[in-house]
Amino acid sequence: MGDIATDEVERRGLAAKAASRTMATAPSTKKNDALRAMYALIIDNQQSIIDENRADLERADANGLTKPMIDRLTLTPNRIADMAAGILEIASLPDPIGAVLGGVKRPNGLQITKLRVPLGVIGIIFESRPNVTVDAASLCVKSGNCVILRGGSEAIRTNIVLADLLRRGLRESGLPDDAIQLIHSTERSAAHRMMTLNGMIDCLIPRGGSHLIKMVTETATVPVIETGTGNCHIFVDKDADLEMALQIILNAKTSRPSVCNSVETVLIHEDVVEVFAPLMAAQLVHAHVEIRSDEKTARYLSQSVPATEQDWYEEYNALILAVKTVEDCADAIEHISKYGTKHSEAIITTNYNMAQEFCDQVDAAAVYVNASTRFTDGHRFGMGAEIGISNQKLHARGPMGLEELTTYKYVVRGTGQVV
Amino acid sequence: MGDIATDEVERRGLAAKAASRTMATAPSTKKNDALRAMYALIIDNQQSIIDENRADLERADANGLTKPMIDRLTLTPNRIADMAAGILEIASLPDPIGAVLGGVKRPNGLQITKLRVPLGVIGIIFESRPNVTVDAASLCVKSGNCVILRGGSEAIRTNIVLADLLRRGLRESGLPDDAIQLIHSTERSAAHRMMTLNGMIDCLIPRGGSHLIKMVTETATVPVIETGTGNCHIFVDKDADLEMALQIILNAKTSRPSVCNSVETVLIHEDVVEVFAPLMAAQLVHAHVEIRSDEKTARYLSQSVPATEQDWYEEYNALILAVKTVEDCADAIEHISKYGTKHSEAIITTNYNMAQEFCDQVDAAAVYVNASTRFTDGHRFGMGAEIGISNQKLHARGPMGLEELTTYKYVVRGTGQVV
Repeated sequence: MGDIATDEVERRGLAAKAASRTMATAPSTKKNDALRAMYALIIDNQQSIIDENRADLERADANGLTKPMIDRLTLTPNRIADMAAGILEIASLPDPIGAVLGGVKRPNGLQITKLRVPLGVIGIIFESRPNVTVDAASLCVKSGNCVILRGGSEAIRTNIVLADLLRRGLRESGLPDDAIQLIHSTERSAAHRMMTLNGMIDCLIPRGGSHLIKMVTETATVPVIETGTGNCHIFVDKDADLEMALQIILNAKTSRPSVCNSVETVLIHEDVVEVFAPLMAAQLVHAHVEIRSDEKTARYLSQSVPATEQDWYEEYNALILAVKTVEDCADAIEHISKYGTKHSEAIITTNYNMAQEFCDQVDAAAVYVNASTRFTDGHRFGMGAEIGISNQKLHARGPMGLEELTTYKYVVRGTGQVV
Repeated sequence: MGDIATDEVERRGLAAKAASRTMATAPSTKKNDALRAMYALIIDNQQSIIDENRADLERADANGLTKPMIDRLTLTPNRIADMAAGILEIASLPDPIGAVLGGVKRPNGLQITKLRVPLGVIGIIFESRPNVTVDAASLCVKSGNCVILRGGSEAIRTNIVLADLLRRGLRESGLPDDAIQLIHSTERSAAHRMMTLNGMIDCLIPRGGSHLIKMVTETATVPVIETGTGNCHIFVDKDADLEMALQIILNAKTSRPSVCNSVETVLIHEDVVEVFAPLMAAQLVHAHVEIRSDEKTARYLSQSVPATEQDWYEEYNALILAVKTVEDCADAIEHISKYGTKHSEAIITTNYNMAQEFCDQVDAAAVYVNASTRFTDGHRFGMGAEIGISNQKLHARGPMGLEELTTYKYVVRGTGQVV
């Protein structure tokens, strides 16, 4: 049985589970003290973080990691300051735990109260960005949860020094440092063991590319929240303000093409395609966006690659945009229903009825009228921070902040009632 | 690829998914009309239901099914009337869909509204009780969902006639009959295919014994809500009203021992064990309950089987009760944390501090003070009906009624905002 990696995961799972009882009832003041201690420790130990990060970077370089991966791995004094500031922001948010969500007095006199409580132990499997260690741990501490973190092997030394500082912050404030667990083993078997740690992990959140998400969904027996895949659409209605449509599409495609809330397909109402398609193409090509279009749209474009069936399914996460002409709003909704990933979908229109139809009929975490899909984000929604964007319908949908890291329990007070 | 059974599941999955767009926006009046039509159809066709049920029963008898299984399978005119009345009750409940759960106007003018929407397509895998077909389908229709039902092979003819009537009710009210799908294939491969029907099933709920639940949890790649396992405890504090404790324990153990909210272990404070244990044992033995106790308690009992470590984990679902003496409330909480299944846990006490400590520290769907654990039930909680009792923390915890069959979406209205 068990190699060193799986033994480590089990040991940390038990330790987190044991700490979760204390964390669940920790008062807000103590949790906020711990967060402020973590902030101070990260600021005070900036140099050792940078040293450990440098060691990771040297190894990454020797292993020939790609430039974007190395960029995501790199910590600078500015990035460390931002990361630390994020902890203070979380400390300043209201504590979600203990809120009364509802309740009733039953005819027999039983008093039922529904209370918000932490999930318990949250597992996070993530890729190279070391800031996830700090963000996820802070959100979990604030919401009374314990966390088991499993980052990528390329960031292991950075993650170890960060987790040590975070744990020290808990200790200094009288909270159990076992509430934050970082898996040190970099073997694959460690991640796999996490996925089947039933009874110890209450919720597992994978953060990373679609390959990671798929693997976790298929392997895990613990409850999982799928995150991140976004094949988002913008539908330009015949009654759209075309200048507005243009600005929104440019923003949604080019402001940060690698993220899940960027647009991947634009659908244009056939009544306006002749005017709008060339206008849009000119600006997009100027912004180095490759356009892949259906035949109908291509007639009005000077340069465009023919789109294949696969293009409608694609989440490019790059400067590529699929474009298709549709007959009307219903046709656009049909396309989105078939190819979309239920993440973020937008209509640009001045027509009240079309806006209503789109909002009612499109099944997605966020449905927009006259705004960029890029707003689907915990900060931009006003949640203060996010641990990820859920791509499923169970438990949490869209940006997940503190409340989405909680569950509830019923407290039932009686005077001897029996059934 | 695919045999007849898996083909059927895929075909029904697609049909349900297609119907889910109409169901999601169906007005309450239409959904209630459909429910009332279903009621009338079941009442009017009582004889054909009984005929089909008789055919199932004859087969069950020939196959040597156990008496309790045959009892669960049997429909009588009274049971059919109850089942039909349940549909009317669901019709009379408020429609959960479309409720505004919250929202905010952001500084940039974006108006974000969080709306309650159906989950989409719900899969139910269940064992012999044919009333689940009617209950689950009615709850799903009322909450704007589609449902794919997979019952036990022993009830197949009963389930087919019931599903046909329910579908006819949808049709008569102008709703798509594809919203209710019953898998006719009785092969195991059909159930397995349901568990991996990603993109078509938004939520899978197994209802049945622990073997079924475990299999679904381990096999499914679609999101699952675990239901049903309850190793429930009652802790008799030193400050308990012992007569009240006695009545509650008798009720929680003997009123329906086969269900998940019945008590399996009683924990007795050491200060009262000498008085309480023999008192309790006398009544329980009179009610044909077998007692398995630790050594400390056994001293005060004239008849008791020694409990093994395994007994503390056991969900007997029978007239057996494990009994243990504990040092204090903290010791009781420790025991519950180690062996419990986080279902329903009770303390009997007149001491305010102990009641508070127990409610705060015990992690369970329902925590009781001075009441029977048997109240953990959708009807008894005032939800009107339940589709099951969730045993997990994600999405829904404890009894699941109409609201627990929903999710939400964000509708974001703008005036051209970009990030």
